[in-house]
Amino acid sequence: MSPQAINVREKFSLFTDHWNPRIVAELNGQHVKLAKFRGEFAWHKHVAEDELFFVVEGRFRMDFRDTSLWVEKGEMIVVPRGVEHRPFAENEVQVMLFEPVGTLNTGDAKDSRTREGLDWI
Amino acid sequence: MSPQAINVREKFSLFTDHWNPRIVAELNGQHVKLAKFRGEFAWHKHVAEDELFFVVEGRFRMDFRDTSLWVEKGEMIVVPRGVEHRPFAENEVQVMLFEPVGTLNTGDAKDSRTREGLDWI
Repeated sequence: MSPQAINVREKFSLFTDHWNPRIVAELNGQHVKLAKFRGEFAWHKHVAEDELFFVVEGRFRMDFRDTSLWVEKGEMIVVPRGVEHRPFAENEVQVMLFEPVGTLNTGDAKDSRTREGLDWI
Repeated sequence: MSPQAINVREKFSLFTDHWNPRIVAELNGQHVKLAKFRGEFAWHKHVAEDELFFVVEGRFRMDFRDTSLWVEKGEMIVVPRGVEHRPFAENEVQVMLFEPVGTLNTGDAKDSRTREGLDWI
């Protein structure tokens, strides 16, 4: 099968819930995921995975233990493994993530928003 | 040092040449690169690397030996390792790439447009 073009906006139109990433592509042991954030997530870190967040629509604030920064539409941020972080979005934000296959959304802080066995869309 | 936000449009404004990728981020052994394409590139494949192309501005056509497809703004395509491909852009296109550290732009087909030792911007 030949590669297909993946339209990011179309994929975002397929779901409405927050903090529930979907997988849209896999390469080199990494997943590309799409997620909608709204509100405040849990503090957590990923022991063995670096995590990239690219904002497709909206903006969110990434809190670290010693600082925080806003990530605007068209911007990305890389959170290195081991670094505690907490995303916060006052309004809904559409985020594309790039991280190793198997990365848990809540990292080392499993809670009711932990998502395993993510769906492909 | 805390993570910084990387503004993709600002980064694209820092260079004007074509087929000369710059690195903007590294995570999990992968590089995020920005490149401008215009015209027709060389046929090539990557023996051990899958390659993701995400169109930030413009559009380009990806040719395969048996088909081709247009990748529009806001769309991405994953070219699996081993698959021959040739990007073509009638007008300038801005592309974000995700691929393993060390991936050569011309893959197995080194020529005058091969770029090694890429710059960070």
